[in-house]
Amino acid sequence: MTKTSATRLKRLSRALPILDWGSRYTKETASNDLLAAVIVTIMLIPQSLAYALLAGLPAEMGLYASILPLVAYAIFGTSRTLAVGPVAVVSLMTAAAVGNLALQGTAEYAAAAITLAFLSGLILLAMGVFRLGFLANFLSHPVIAGFITASGLLIATSQLKHILGVPASGHNLVEIVHALFAHLSEVNTPTLIIGVTATAFLFWVRKGLKPLLLKMGLRPRLADILTKAGPVAAVAVSTIATFGLNLGDKGVAIVGQVPQGIPPLTLPSFDMDIWTSLMGSALLISIIGFVESVSVAQTLAAKRRQRIVPDQELIGLGASNVAAAVSGGYPVTGGFARSVVNFDAGAETPAAGAFTAVGILLAAFFLTPLLFFLPKATLAATIIVAVLSLVDFSILKRTWSYSKADFAAVASTILLTLGIGVEAGVSAGVLLSILLHLYKTSRPHIAEVGLVPGTQHFRNILRHDVVTSPELLTIRIDESLYFANARYLEDYVSDRVVGDCPIRDVVLMCSAVNEIDTSALESLEAINHRLKDMDIRLHLSEVKGPVMDRLKRAHFLDELTGEVFLAQFDAMKALDPEQAESNSVRARAS
Amino acid sequence: MTKTSATRLKRLSRALPILDWGSRYTKETASNDLLAAVIVTIMLIPQSLAYALLAGLPAEMGLYASILPLVAYAIFGTSRTLAVGPVAVVSLMTAAAVGNLALQGTAEYAAAAITLAFLSGLILLAMGVFRLGFLANFLSHPVIAGFITASGLLIATSQLKHILGVPASGHNLVEIVHALFAHLSEVNTPTLIIGVTATAFLFWVRKGLKPLLLKMGLRPRLADILTKAGPVAAVAVSTIATFGLNLGDKGVAIVGQVPQGIPPLTLPSFDMDIWTSLMGSALLISIIGFVESVSVAQTLAAKRRQRIVPDQELIGLGASNVAAAVSGGYPVTGGFARSVVNFDAGAETPAAGAFTAVGILLAAFFLTPLLFFLPKATLAATIIVAVLSLVDFSILKRTWSYSKADFAAVASTILLTLGIGVEAGVSAGVLLSILLHLYKTSRPHIAEVGLVPGTQHFRNILRHDVVTSPELLTIRIDESLYFANARYLEDYVSDRVVGDCPIRDVVLMCSAVNEIDTSALESLEAINHRLKDMDIRLHLSEVKGPVMDRLKRAHFLDELTGEVFLAQFDAMKALDPEQAESNSVRARAS
Repeated sequence: MTKTSATRLKRLSRALPILDWGSRYTKETASNDLLAAVIVTIMLIPQSLAYALLAGLPAEMGLYASILPLVAYAIFGTSRTLAVGPVAVVSLMTAAAVGNLALQGTAEYAAAAITLAFLSGLILLAMGVFRLGFLANFLSHPVIAGFITASGLLIATSQLKHILGVPASGHNLVEIVHALFAHLSEVNTPTLIIGVTATAFLFWVRKGLKPLLLKMGLRPRLADILTKAGPVAAVAVSTIATFGLNLGDKGVAIVGQVPQGIPPLTLPSFDMDIWTSLMGSALLISIIGFVESVSVAQTLAAKRRQRIVPDQELIGLGASNVAAAVSGGYPVTGGFARSVVNFDAGAETPAAGAFTAVGILLAAFFLTPLLFFLPKATLAATIIVAVLSLVDFSILKRTWSYSKADFAAVASTILLTLGIGVEAGVSAGVLLSILLHLYKTSRPHIAEVGLVPGTQHFRNILRHDVVTSPELLTIRIDESLYFANARYLEDYVSDRVVGDCPIRDVVLMCSAVNEIDTSALESLEAINHRLKDMDIRLHLSEVKGPVMDRLKRAHFLDELTGEVFLAQFDAMKALDPEQAESNSVRARAS
Repeated sequence: MTKTSATRLKRLSRALPILDWGSRYTKETASNDLLAAVIVTIMLIPQSLAYALLAGLPAEMGLYASILPLVAYAIFGTSRTLAVGPVAVVSLMTAAAVGNLALQGTAEYAAAAITLAFLSGLILLAMGVFRLGFLANFLSHPVIAGFITASGLLIATSQLKHILGVPASGHNLVEIVHALFAHLSEVNTPTLIIGVTATAFLFWVRKGLKPLLLKMGLRPRLADILTKAGPVAAVAVSTIATFGLNLGDKGVAIVGQVPQGIPPLTLPSFDMDIWTSLMGSALLISIIGFVESVSVAQTLAAKRRQRIVPDQELIGLGASNVAAAVSGGYPVTGGFARSVVNFDAGAETPAAGAFTAVGILLAAFFLTPLLFFLPKATLAATIIVAVLSLVDFSILKRTWSYSKADFAAVASTILLTLGIGVEAGVSAGVLLSILLHLYKTSRPHIAEVGLVPGTQHFRNILRHDVVTSPELLTIRIDESLYFANARYLEDYVSDRVVGDCPIRDVVLMCSAVNEIDTSALESLEAINHRLKDMDIRLHLSEVKGPVMDRLKRAHFLDELTGEVFLAQFDAMKALDPEQAESNSVRARAS
């Protein structure tokens, strides 16, 4: 192979990670991937149906979203073990977005969900191509944690209607609870029995089954598979019961006719009005899906000292969503629980995802007729049990003790998500965390410093016993200087200097200043001029290399009345030689 | 006086600065203030009329806006020399805001301008009471400079219609120029002659008159007063010419009937629809007015080693605008040119402003009948000459060489202000500068550092000749760690460590980290866990006091696989003792 073609292949395999791992694929890897795929498939079948229900879509769309998108991710994604498909939070967000456009159950509703997947795919692809993955960083950890907790609570509550067998929907907790209470007299008893039994069973499977199986002497891996099969068992038993007892006629809502066969070829709508009204939601879904997916992928990759490439992940998830849009699916992303299962089951390459897709395809072929009598209450039970593990209010406690600003962001995300809706909640959280960050940096910590006797260190005069001189004021700024705090510094210096007559020299110690933008530069010029009007010289010390490089390109240094000192002690030696000398004597003596 | 009542008086005089300077007012101060007031009045009469014209309002509203607001500022403001009144940029913004609601010349238009002043006053008062003055900091210096330059250009162009005597209005340069060209055939020759002559005369007064007068042996102060009286002369001469030559009948637009007497008592509209549609504009006007005013006030105060209190300035300007709203005026703020004139003329206290108000009141009483034949072209000429001094494109050059991000913010502010309008321009500038700042901090400068031989200093391995060891990786982060860059650090550390097998210890050097928020804390935890999975220990060094205080409240330090070192050299001594020892030997040897 020539060098050029080797480079070309390397570049190509960066865009198509499958070329990399595919070329080294062995029989052993295949058998490991296959086993993982079987376990994930068993887990994914009821989940796909349930999340489609949560999104307000026909059950088969959940299956379709678990076939082609997985193949697309296997080709373009960089994580070896991420399992892609419909997930709870994105399903909820899909329902919120599409619910604004069409009524649940209509063809327009399904078409809008397909279009949403397409838009989300385009956004993710564009972010990947233009390397805009950093945008996701503006979703802070606490905001995500708050959002996931509130969404989990919202999802669980929204599924209570299926457990009770009453109609009750809404975009937020208030609406849902209100609707539930309004219909409380109409509760369908057979539905309630199925729902409560299924929920209790699934909770027991999650908490109590595995220890029991292990105690019975089963091998851990087998115990694991059986535990993951819990939801499948619930689905099977309740379906048979509903069929046998003819509960469909007794008011138990069932899944009904599910089309049999391979996913249909679908096309998104190209109506500009629909695009405009879905664009904001698509952006939110893309970013939240990406953030969740990448953090799972990164955690799992690190365990095996592997790498994922966030910008290529955007391409992988974008391709998955476009694949969902052309094959009758709806927005997908990497799921936390199922990726961990995939990893634990020994998946080694994305081929495991492709094998899972085949498993779901087989289900779409052969299992769909059997789903006719599946009660919606059972699916609701699987959702409730799955999402309640997402609910974790400890983030409130942690941020309260660590950072009040972060607490404010989490609290408002949770309150607004529950009280108004998912999109309002997450948008408010992002905005508030940005505003609070800007607010904090707009009033930076500024310390007046003095010399620690016998050393060359300068410390805060309020915290330490230090030496200062009346004619020399040294101020350390603990923040980059930029427009939001430039005027604060001006005010601080003015306030400090006016009325303190002996001051002849002011030194700004810049050891923590990582940037000085044009506004801050002009503020420094203003400070310099104003101090000059008062016959006070301005000096700088400990200016960082990159900051100094830039300052040299401006006029400020020519106009500066004082000097720029490399170290703060140099400033003291030059401006208060007596003090510096007596300190050196002290240092030698000690 | 008891101690309590002294404290009370002090607190009261902080809210009412007049109590402070008023109690020490002398005859000499009064005579200085009076002289300054005479000069400012002479300057302010034509300006008030002209800016009212620019705002699309009747001429008398300009006068009214220069009476009661000045008195209100004299009572509540903290600057000794700031001259408040209608200014060019705020007048243009008023026209843009009110123009969306009503047609120029209608009673609704004037009522909306009054309501705008009231809203702006309320916003400023609220910002003062709740100490929200820092909000103004988000208007960066370059954005303001770009905005003022673009506004100046826009204002000058908008006045060409009065010089040419044709109808032509618009919100942006494109609309205005287009309208001017459409009416170019209708140019009124007498108007054009007056307009061009007045403009040329005023330019000459500004540039050539003062040197001439000084050469003729006049005292500088007298020369100054005569120069400032230039616009008054232009007004007088052109009014007499228009009256004498009966130019009003020849198509020269004149000011016409101006009501005579004291300002009327007016009330703002309390229609919620009007409030809603004016609120955004009122906020922009308030913030821009405040920023302009404070920077003038601060510059002048520093020259005399005086202080201004920004939060109290908000109260002063707020009171002025409310005063404008109840006395037939429109939004006002501190003007740059007139404050400098006031200062140079020797004003010592805000009483000069009150005296100016009396001067304008006398003008409203006695001069208004004389203004009937005043050509609008003359007023347009005074505006053009005044605002062209605001136009200064050098900010583009300065930011280009100093900071490309700031250049982008300025350029888009200028382009959007000229191309779309004032509100779009300034909003885009603010948003863009915030986004660019966040973008910059989201990809912080991270340097791998090593030991400078023979010292205890650690420097960038790319810039300096330093000692490193293969098992120890030290990374210095030049930015506070927060949500926007937390994941960037995770990626950086993962990328750096994966594949570099000898690494056993990673040290994060935090000397420039001023904050670690919850997101960054969780990223550090993630980094710690992932490194642990790879058998690598994570250490921190040179963590700042306040950051360390907070870290101690979290679990991170318990889980940290490595240690926290006070100094980076301590880390080296502990983690690579051989290297540190041989360095000490080298240091002693040298």
